[in-house]
Amino acid sequence: MVRTLAAMTVLALASVLPTAAQDLPSWNDGAAKKSIVDFVTAVTTQGGSDFVEPADRIAVFDNDGTLWSEQPMYVQLAFVLDRVKALAPEHPEWKDTEPFKSVLAGDMKGVAAAGMKGLVEIVAATHSGMTSDEFSRIATDWIASAKHPTTGKPYTSMIYQPMRELVSYLKDNGFKVFIVSGGGIEFMRPWTERVYSIPAENVVGSSIKTKYEMRDGKPAVVRLPEIDFIDDEAGKPVGIAKFIGKRPIAAFGNSDGDFQMLEWTTAGDGRRFGLIVHHDDGEREVAYDRDSHFGKLAKGLDEGPKRGWTIVSMKNDWKQVFPE
Amino acid sequence: MVRTLAAMTVLALASVLPTAAQDLPSWNDGAAKKSIVDFVTAVTTQGGSDFVEPADRIAVFDNDGTLWSEQPMYVQLAFVLDRVKALAPEHPEWKDTEPFKSVLAGDMKGVAAAGMKGLVEIVAATHSGMTSDEFSRIATDWIASAKHPTTGKPYTSMIYQPMRELVSYLKDNGFKVFIVSGGGIEFMRPWTERVYSIPAENVVGSSIKTKYEMRDGKPAVVRLPEIDFIDDEAGKPVGIAKFIGKRPIAAFGNSDGDFQMLEWTTAGDGRRFGLIVHHDDGEREVAYDRDSHFGKLAKGLDEGPKRGWTIVSMKNDWKQVFPE
Repeated sequence: MVRTLAAMTVLALASVLPTAAQDLPSWNDGAAKKSIVDFVTAVTTQGGSDFVEPADRIAVFDNDGTLWSEQPMYVQLAFVLDRVKALAPEHPEWKDTEPFKSVLAGDMKGVAAAGMKGLVEIVAATHSGMTSDEFSRIATDWIASAKHPTTGKPYTSMIYQPMRELVSYLKDNGFKVFIVSGGGIEFMRPWTERVYSIPAENVVGSSIKTKYEMRDGKPAVVRLPEIDFIDDEAGKPVGIAKFIGKRPIAAFGNSDGDFQMLEWTTAGDGRRFGLIVHHDDGEREVAYDRDSHFGKLAKGLDEGPKRGWTIVSMKNDWKQVFPE
Repeated sequence: MVRTLAAMTVLALASVLPTAAQDLPSWNDGAAKKSIVDFVTAVTTQGGSDFVEPADRIAVFDNDGTLWSEQPMYVQLAFVLDRVKALAPEHPEWKDTEPFKSVLAGDMKGVAAAGMKGLVEIVAATHSGMTSDEFSRIATDWIASAKHPTTGKPYTSMIYQPMRELVSYLKDNGFKVFIVSGGGIEFMRPWTERVYSIPAENVVGSSIKTKYEMRDGKPAVVRLPEIDFIDDEAGKPVGIAKFIGKRPIAAFGNSDGDFQMLEWTTAGDGRRFGLIVHHDDGEREVAYDRDSHFGKLAKGLDEGPKRGWTIVSMKNDWKQVFPE
């Protein structure tokens, strides 16, 4: 009863307090920040025409390039390359077999030449065979020690402070926040709670198939060398429908891989919100869009503004890029 | 700040209050109730050797036969049969085609004779072709009006009051509660929050494939006539690993379809809890186990006690079966 009363107090206070723009200290005042605060105010104002019940306040965030850096390469690609090196002693044949040969030689052009087929081979060889629990430990250990190739910082320091504030701001306003990433679901889950305050079960991503079996006399979920689901482009709305089961009212991305997620989200009834982070800050981060190999953004830049999506200029809209 | 203080108050109170056995008023005092309260007390007692962080307090519940009635047939089967009747005018050929012919004639033996292949055909014909949003409305409308064949009550009244109290008790103690059902994920999601206080995104179940496409000029997730995933037996640990990404510390079921879920849950490190609802109350509900077509329970009865699982006798452990 005491707990219930206290919980009701929280709810009551939350509904009368103004939406706090001071919760976004790393955002410069301007159109982008205003569009966020206006949207959140509208959908949380009880009695307003745009009010949305908390259960339906679903917000989805892409990860690579939206919540953390994806340059000079996807973090998970760095993980995969490190895994090939770590596993090489057990696979002497890799020295003479592409695409492993190129990985071991540090020849990124050779890796790229192997294309998607080569990448799937590398992922299958490095991401399967172990149990889910074992893979989770491998990912946890790697993320704790690996360093970003240009800054030398841990990858979990290469996250965008303004976006982290945005996640907290939405959660404080009763939103349920999910990651919807093209990256591997089990690669992200071990650390998203600690780094973004987004729990493991709120992560949607690409996955490989698994199988339940007895291993060394103990029941285990074992990872198989077969792709189950690619959570990118048109796969993102499919992943959201499957894992979350509701159409979001707000979507945040940075590349054309997020286009369909923003399209589906903002085409729903009632007030909706779409936002694209534009990497235009070559000084504090990396400037890239239409011609980038990772995180290509062209359609979103052309179509987004016509659809009412907010285009965030990292250079102009963010006071600060990384935490410190 | 005020919100933060109030939230901290809730957390502080929650951690010092004793686990409240009075939260389980429909449970008779006895070994089953005691095992639940002992487990919850152990994993929530800060500083105790069995303490588990709230983020890892994952509890999973089967639905059919565990949270609501599965007799005289699975509720979703009643839904499917009603859908065949509703769609029959658009399919004159069904009058002469099995298994639809048997469904329309009310010949359940004929339906059963069509086996799993027939059932998949019926599900494909009635559960696909529409968008996810449309299917959600169809399920919502049906559950609001359909009546249980023997009691004449809405199906959402045929839920087990003691299990609903158990869900609340776990949530009050910081657990994250999920449904992990062999039933269709999109059939359950529209009403689980209202009926069980379990939100849509915390539902894991069987699913069919979907596809993102433009339909009548609007983006939509469209349901395809193809099974994506069967969340039963060995599929349950796989579904949990995929959707939740953590091994639960407590699992609740009633049939051998739940065996692997309980096995995997209770084989983990640290304190674990497994519980099987035994339908032994022919007066207040239906008595069935080893020979039942729906919800067969044999292995769980034989193996469960040896593994330390709690076997709940509906007859002896529950003061009340249904809400009122």
